[in-house]
Amino acid sequence: MEELKRFDVAQLAHVEIYTPKPEETLWFFKDVLGLCETAREGQSVYLRAYEDFYHHSLKITERNEPGLGHISWRSASNSALDRRVAELQKSGYGKGWIDGDLGHGHAYQFTTPDGHLMELLWDVDYYQCTDDQKTVLKNRPQKRPLNGVPVRRIDHVNCLTSDVTKNKNFMMNELGFRLREHVVRNDGSELGAWLSISPLVHELAFMKDQGFSESGLGRLHHVAFWYGFPQHLNDLSEVLTEHDIKIEAGPLKHGVSQAMCMYVIEPGGNRVELFGDSGYLIFDPDWKPVTWKEEEVERAIIFYGAPLPEEYFKYGTPQKIVVENK
Amino acid sequence: MEELKRFDVAQLAHVEIYTPKPEETLWFFKDVLGLCETAREGQSVYLRAYEDFYHHSLKITERNEPGLGHISWRSASNSALDRRVAELQKSGYGKGWIDGDLGHGHAYQFTTPDGHLMELLWDVDYYQCTDDQKTVLKNRPQKRPLNGVPVRRIDHVNCLTSDVTKNKNFMMNELGFRLREHVVRNDGSELGAWLSISPLVHELAFMKDQGFSESGLGRLHHVAFWYGFPQHLNDLSEVLTEHDIKIEAGPLKHGVSQAMCMYVIEPGGNRVELFGDSGYLIFDPDWKPVTWKEEEVERAIIFYGAPLPEEYFKYGTPQKIVVENK
Amino acid sequence: MEELKRFDVAQLAHVEIYTPKPEETLWFFKDVLGLCETAREGQSVYLRAYEDFYHHSLKITERNEPGLGHISWRSASNSALDRRVAELQKSGYGKGWIDGDLGHGHAYQFTTPDGHLMELLWDVDYYQCTDDQKTVLKNRPQKRPLNGVPVRRIDHVNCLTSDVTKNKNFMMNELGFRLREHVVRNDGSELGAWLSISPLVHELAFMKDQGFSESGLGRLHHVAFWYGFPQHLNDLSEVLTEHDIKIEAGPLKHGVSQAMCMYVIEPGGNRVELFGDSGYLIFDPDWKPVTWKEEEVERAIIFYGAPLPEEYFKYGTPQKIVVENK
Amino acid sequence: MEELKRFDVAQLAHVEIYTPKPEETLWFFKDVLGLCETAREGQSVYLRAYEDFYHHSLKITERNEPGLGHISWRSASNSALDRRVAELQKSGYGKGWIDGDLGHGHAYQFTTPDGHLMELLWDVDYYQCTDDQKTVLKNRPQKRPLNGVPVRRIDHVNCLTSDVTKNKNFMMNELGFRLREHVVRNDGSELGAWLSISPLVHELAFMKDQGFSESGLGRLHHVAFWYGFPQHLNDLSEVLTEHDIKIEAGPLKHGVSQAMCMYVIEPGGNRVELFGDSGYLIFDPDWKPVTWKEEEVERAIIFYGAPLPEEYFKYGTPQKIVVENK
Repeated sequence: MEELKRFDVAQLAHVEIYTPKPEETLWFFKDVLGLCETAREGQSVYLRAYEDFYHHSLKITERNEPGLGHISWRSASNSALDRRVAELQKSGYGKGWIDGDLGHGHAYQFTTPDGHLMELLWDVDYYQCTDDQKTVLKNRPQKRPLNGVPVRRIDHVNCLTSDVTKNKNFMMNELGFRLREHVVRNDGSELGAWLSISPLVHELAFMKDQGFSESGLGRLHHVAFWYGFPQHLNDLSEVLTEHDIKIEAGPLKHGVSQAMCMYVIEPGGNRVELFGDSGYLIFDPDWKPVTWKEEEVERAIIFYGAPLPEEYFKYGTPQKIVVENK
Repeated sequence: MEELKRFDVAQLAHVEIYTPKPEETLWFFKDVLGLCETAREGQSVYLRAYEDFYHHSLKITERNEPGLGHISWRSASNSALDRRVAELQKSGYGKGWIDGDLGHGHAYQFTTPDGHLMELLWDVDYYQCTDDQKTVLKNRPQKRPLNGVPVRRIDHVNCLTSDVTKNKNFMMNELGFRLREHVVRNDGSELGAWLSISPLVHELAFMKDQGFSESGLGRLHHVAFWYGFPQHLNDLSEVLTEHDIKIEAGPLKHGVSQAMCMYVIEPGGNRVELFGDSGYLIFDPDWKPVTWKEEEVERAIIFYGAPLPEEYFKYGTPQKIVVENK
Repeated sequence: MEELKRFDVAQLAHVEIYTPKPEETLWFFKDVLGLCETAREGQSVYLRAYEDFYHHSLKITERNEPGLGHISWRSASNSALDRRVAELQKSGYGKGWIDGDLGHGHAYQFTTPDGHLMELLWDVDYYQCTDDQKTVLKNRPQKRPLNGVPVRRIDHVNCLTSDVTKNKNFMMNELGFRLREHVVRNDGSELGAWLSISPLVHELAFMKDQGFSESGLGRLHHVAFWYGFPQHLNDLSEVLTEHDIKIEAGPLKHGVSQAMCMYVIEPGGNRVELFGDSGYLIFDPDWKPVTWKEEEVERAIIFYGAPLPEEYFKYGTPQKIVVENK
Repeated sequence: MEELKRFDVAQLAHVEIYTPKPEETLWFFKDVLGLCETAREGQSVYLRAYEDFYHHSLKITERNEPGLGHISWRSASNSALDRRVAELQKSGYGKGWIDGDLGHGHAYQFTTPDGHLMELLWDVDYYQCTDDQKTVLKNRPQKRPLNGVPVRRIDHVNCLTSDVTKNKNFMMNELGFRLREHVVRNDGSELGAWLSISPLVHELAFMKDQGFSESGLGRLHHVAFWYGFPQHLNDLSEVLTEHDIKIEAGPLKHGVSQAMCMYVIEPGGNRVELFGDSGYLIFDPDWKPVTWKEEEVERAIIFYGAPLPEEYFKYGTPQKIVVENK
């Protein structure tokens, strides 16, 4: 059972983000990043990239401030789901089952210690394309889109947190995530931690929130989509610059993960990362986490390319506390 | 236990190939592909790519014909090794433990039904670079080499076989490999099968040997190394063409795996594949194998690029039966 | 005057092609290659790529067979135009002045010895984009399009001919083109010649027509557009393969010109080439033409990549003689 | 005669730079950038990139401070050389003929108004490779090197100047250079000007020297070499970062020229630029210079990528006035 834990969570299924500017945010994800809309319901639009196999990988919900809705993980099996839920219930961070949403069946909700809302699920709906989108490339659920500079799939999510270690330990202990790389300050505290459940260096990162005072806990640093080819970062940079969308940094190469990447602020205010390749992959089952020192943090984030923007550790969404009147 | 099986084998550790022309083969792997030599012993030279973490990923042994020495898999843990060995012993294909080799401790040897020699191990030596090769990129075991068009790590191996289904089932049943894609002929027999133990589409493929009559069973189709960036396939193609090394096919894009790749015959006669990107990755824990029909085989191998060379399904190593006088 | 001749023709201005399937041909150039329509008149549609500075670089005219309409060259100045026209009139191949067309003023028409219709002009209209297409990249006439895999500019044109040497000499003697590379058969006749008026290796090529018997003279081999980045050839290859558009060859690297390229047959039947980089550029004012022998022709066309398709020297447009009933 | 002026200078032939650290500078150019040494004489070493056709494109001379030795231009013909020399002699900036140097015959020396030493020549020696370096790629003077991340040819040179307009006008009036793009400050003075004698956007740039007070006039901003493929900028960035060579900026995309590029300080102190593609090319014979305003200067230099480093307009070589004791 303990030996199975590290394999019980299989993948990042989807992420929900909030936006105060749904029209502009949808333009960004659909017309520029080439995501396809699969459904609309209430204040939410469901989207997926052309190599995402399920109903959606991104849910965009209108709200008065940008930020993170929830993060959805798929378990390795139905029994793996049960095993993890049993542990989550004991952890004190379990919230309970929901019946599901468009695109998936029942899911167990929980939060990180900092309050980032997550869910774990097994039942998912597979995307079925229309006939004109069927492709001879049989391992792809639809044709490559002819609009924008289309991303291929969702890659990872990065959460700002008041306590990297505490949130990291929660994901490792309750859900079997493995620590791949981290930045440790000279006082021993962690500035950032990159965790994964696969050979990817991370599906989830936590970074110390250095700008949260007015915004509360549980902020989003970024959600990332994957291209696989570095040129597409250049193509996207052209398009964004010509359309006056802010590129925060890059294209550049990360130290952590070795990925070619760039950061963009989508019109709703959320930071989005684009990955231009897969970076390095970790197949070693006995991987020793890579530790970067405080003075190496700039190299950890940027192996080469643009210097680290000041706002990088401070900007997250939401920027102010949201007072909800639901 | 059954649930753990699919996670018990973690990765491809190394491959041994034979060459009748050790000098030329070493020139190819060292000067052109940028591999580093880590040891020599007897008729063997041990090499690794600059992002391979262990002592070696390729062992080149002099012999009168090219071909496959052995394929080495690393288990997910010591107990995983024990579990798999217990099963292998029951399977009738187990050969027994060896004490180890340069770079690793004791290993359990076995063969596929067709006789490809394999081993499973847990104890490995990590590569320690010299001081001048230490790098600020802390997740990389050494600096990127300044010679050749250097590959980053070993990727996969492809074996020719008299019976794809039988050999595939052995790897799936005894070692937990998962079928990712296969080509099925109209008579129901499998022409090729791509198997993996990770999100990679394959660490191991079997293809129907259509040219083995004079060569016996257990032939090698190719061993593959990984670049991560498609341009390096172009760079390598220039170098190979100028140095009169045969490019069998490519650069091109596979249907199966979606990887940008090329095939080269190294001077000793073995086919080597180079991967220019990671292709698509499979994170879905409930993946349904992609089935390509007989008439789709050309598209399965080549999504776009050069047509399929005739020799592709016929050429393997060794080409003739080796009469050994050990 | 003689010294000025080699500078009198400055650039390829535009090319007109015929198509029997205007809808499909326009879909190909607009939706797939990202060209912008700037005008329609009669049976013709005028298009340009996003870095073409003039009114149009491609004119597509409906006709019952595909083929070449005309090739338009821009002179280096008004006086250069006059100098060349004076020579053309003496050559016997001059046809006379036309008043102009959409996008340019008066032009002098002439033919090659084989009858390919050409024109030389000075007055051109510059493209003026709409406000929403204005870009901060001030050396580009409009934003990069968000549709298709957009080409950047027209690059060159390749004409099939009954006599390479005769047609080549005409362009060199009358218009100052310089021979950059050629393939010479063992009997001394030229199989292909690549000519330019700039550091590009060619704006114009002639190749021996080996399939013209039923089609008459003056056939088009291909017109080429330029990307500048090799990845776009891969992107386009994906799109074309998924939309069932025939890729004749490539992506591959030419020997002649060293360009990364691919050949596509557009739905109307004309061959289109895409250039993924600029190849090498010739700045040497005393350049000695590179001569490839008959047995080197395959290498001349394909430095590495796909083998030479059989139809390459035989297929051109039109394929049959056009009987016009205008 | 006046009409010929703009064609009389054909290309950048070579550049001489000074270095106080010849060993380290040679390591940089040979082992990292893959240049080949063709000769040594006195305190100078002669080098060329693998697609440079002449004896050398870079001369490195030991001296107590880094900086510019001279810039050598090749004329379009012998008579073009005579025409330009006649004008230079009248200009007051002519210095006189020298007998030649290794790799070329007699040359006419002159300076810019700011004192940058230049020469104009016609007679050059072509590089002849050794037999083992002969290549089947007949338009390339040698095989692609197997060491470093090899550049293909020299591209351009950028000079710091006390008066952009004055130096620019000299090159335009006396030598026929054409203004392609410039940055004009709100007071009407030019901050930078990019000039060419070919479709390249520049073989020569002048930028306002904002840090010359202690260094005197005639400083070098950078010399640039060309790759043709953007990935090589990434490859080089890896190598440089791992070898602790300073990347000043990039990889990034210029606004001016649209080229993918990066800036590096070689161990001797000179700034070197690497071009990853050809940018856009200017074929329009009636090109109107692109004018960037003072407030657009950041975009002019960096279309996307890293922000402009502060030192960019201040750092040049030499940094201090050189007191020579020849």
